[in-house]
Amino acid sequence: MSHRRRAGTRTSENTSEIDTIRLSHGDAPAEAFPATSLAEIARDVVSTRAHEALQYGQPQGYGPLRKLVAAWLQSDGIRGRPQDVQIVTGAKQGIELALRAVTTPGDSVIVGAPTYMNALRIIRANRLRPLTVPHDSQGLDVHALERLLQSLAAGGATLPRLIYDIPDFHNPTGAVLEESRREKLVAVASAFQIPVIEDMTYRWTRPPGPASKSLCELDTRGNTIGIGTFSKVLGPGLRIGWIHGNRKLLASAVQYKSDGGTSPLTQMIAHEFFRADGSLDRHRATIRTILTAKREGMLSALQEMLGRSASWTSPVGGYYVWASIPSVDTDALEALARVSGVEFFSGSMFFASDPAPRHYLRLAFSYESPERIRRGIQTIGASVASLSAKRELARR
Amino acid sequence: MSHRRRAGTRTSENTSEIDTIRLSHGDAPAEAFPATSLAEIARDVVSTRAHEALQYGQPQGYGPLRKLVAAWLQSDGIRGRPQDVQIVTGAKQGIELALRAVTTPGDSVIVGAPTYMNALRIIRANRLRPLTVPHDSQGLDVHALERLLQSLAAGGATLPRLIYDIPDFHNPTGAVLEESRREKLVAVASAFQIPVIEDMTYRWTRPPGPASKSLCELDTRGNTIGIGTFSKVLGPGLRIGWIHGNRKLLASAVQYKSDGGTSPLTQMIAHEFFRADGSLDRHRATIRTILTAKREGMLSALQEMLGRSASWTSPVGGYYVWASIPSVDTDALEALARVSGVEFFSGSMFFASDPAPRHYLRLAFSYESPERIRRGIQTIGASVASLSAKRELARR
Repeated sequence: MSHRRRAGTRTSENTSEIDTIRLSHGDAPAEAFPATSLAEIARDVVSTRAHEALQYGQPQGYGPLRKLVAAWLQSDGIRGRPQDVQIVTGAKQGIELALRAVTTPGDSVIVGAPTYMNALRIIRANRLRPLTVPHDSQGLDVHALERLLQSLAAGGATLPRLIYDIPDFHNPTGAVLEESRREKLVAVASAFQIPVIEDMTYRWTRPPGPASKSLCELDTRGNTIGIGTFSKVLGPGLRIGWIHGNRKLLASAVQYKSDGGTSPLTQMIAHEFFRADGSLDRHRATIRTILTAKREGMLSALQEMLGRSASWTSPVGGYYVWASIPSVDTDALEALARVSGVEFFSGSMFFASDPAPRHYLRLAFSYESPERIRRGIQTIGASVASLSAKRELARR
Repeated sequence: MSHRRRAGTRTSENTSEIDTIRLSHGDAPAEAFPATSLAEIARDVVSTRAHEALQYGQPQGYGPLRKLVAAWLQSDGIRGRPQDVQIVTGAKQGIELALRAVTTPGDSVIVGAPTYMNALRIIRANRLRPLTVPHDSQGLDVHALERLLQSLAAGGATLPRLIYDIPDFHNPTGAVLEESRREKLVAVASAFQIPVIEDMTYRWTRPPGPASKSLCELDTRGNTIGIGTFSKVLGPGLRIGWIHGNRKLLASAVQYKSDGGTSPLTQMIAHEFFRADGSLDRHRATIRTILTAKREGMLSALQEMLGRSASWTSPVGGYYVWASIPSVDTDALEALARVSGVEFFSGSMFFASDPAPRHYLRLAFSYESPERIRRGIQTIGASVASLSAKRELARR
């Protein structure tokens, strides 16, 4: 999350009189931070292995952590070996490195409409052009994607160089890419020889039990780069993510990693926390319980406060609910709610098109307590009523 | 340091039979790591402020750390305010962000011959062209720079978009840019309206007492971006650096910071360590004592082992001695020494030109003990003798 405005009194600056309710940024649930364990681990790592934790690290990442990630991937059906895993400084860095590995300035990149706003920002900062494909409740419309590519190819146009998608608990919509669409996406990308970035940021927030296969698992051609992160399973402050897949693509991506290697200290802390068998499943269960209560709180508040004017998604994982309020301009609603002490992001920032639709909202339930989420939705409801009344008045 | 090969048994992988003596990479002296203090600080930060340390941080960096850096800059004569400081994930990220802020692909960038190899790598990865200016024992030849710019301007050619230099304890030569050259550099850059990146990585390794003014201090036009790092004053593993200067340039640079903000955890640790008055000076003295012993060890070993065949610099700060051995090909010497258990970097990688001079060596004294440095230089001496004997034989 860049260009973020911080809430209330959390830091020594940017303090404000109002204790803003933040339904905007995808902050992690702080209640789930295992502070006591991590504090002891941090002390032990620094006191006993300072020569490694405080020194420059390996460019590919801390070896034991790469093994751990590879084991997670394998348990998820993905053929990941430690040497196929590159540690990065957060998933966003992974997106940028993968983009830079396969594109040159001026190329176009396929994204959903809508898609993750920071992916759009990174695409544009790298002088690439986002090319959109519709997205619905089943995820990316892969048939529309196929038609687009066919028509570009038929017209002799240059094909896009990359497809970026978030198949699991999409940001911002929460949609899970439907199974047959996953197969189709892999097949289409392979047929047109276009690499795919599978942003798996929210995959590990899913409920227990069987899950849709990842694109990385379905792809037997090595055409997919998976991106993962510790931000959702441990804490964003560690700034650790990974990219995995085709070694040639990884080797190309790492050329652009100019941060001198990801911090060995934070990697060693994460590794120590998760090295015990079953620790990931246990901690995921903790996070899931907390997120479920927040999400249920948000959904019931929406039903109560906005049941008449809005519709919304009900994801079973991820951080976000995507709502639609046809009767208001959500950019105006965002501004009004903000002065009333509630932050959310208008859906317009998630679309590459200009003008972008202005009747969607992304509501993050990940950070605030269920009680504050309820108050936040109440305020948004009041703001909707106020904007609607104004419009009604203007019409007369 | 990217693409680094790790020494001996330091990590669980890349182990080798030989306990390689590393005079290659600019690793920090591990003896200087304040492990005990940092271990307690790390524990306290995580246990009492997990909600901030483990969460996403401010895009511009942790506020108290920016204040601390601004105070350091002020004590060094630089007009730095906290709002003029952007925290970055290591100095190399700072170089890349500053480069991207002021250039577009295809532009040329002025660098010294020689210059920091990772700056060259970043310049090329960003599709920029390095344009070289000679460098001597007094640092960058700013008169040659002026003549180059005048001739480009006279010929109607596009001017370079940026000047990159390391005025203090240059990497790789150890040279300190002479005072009148500093003034000239600022004046020339200003006259041609070319921004300057002043890489201040080694500035804080200098001896006590008066120092040459930084370009940032001399430049009253806001044309210089300073880059600093905690790698040399605390530990590279924290991955914290900063850029400071013209707010417009900073705002442009931060657009390219795609890592989701530098880790709040490592920033808070660094801030806690240095928050007490005088802590920087005390810790710098510790580091300086250690580095001085290593450097003196290297210089006396060079005198003893290579006094007849080589010449070298004797810097009073920084991490490197730059040696010249006209009688051998240093690329071959690097390879021979490596199989004999000693790593250093041949000077050729520090030149943008192709072919590059192959009679220089960069010898890092920062990491190994004086005793191991001595053994390393002894091995290099033996390798020089062996190569010279072979050449002699070939001549007959």
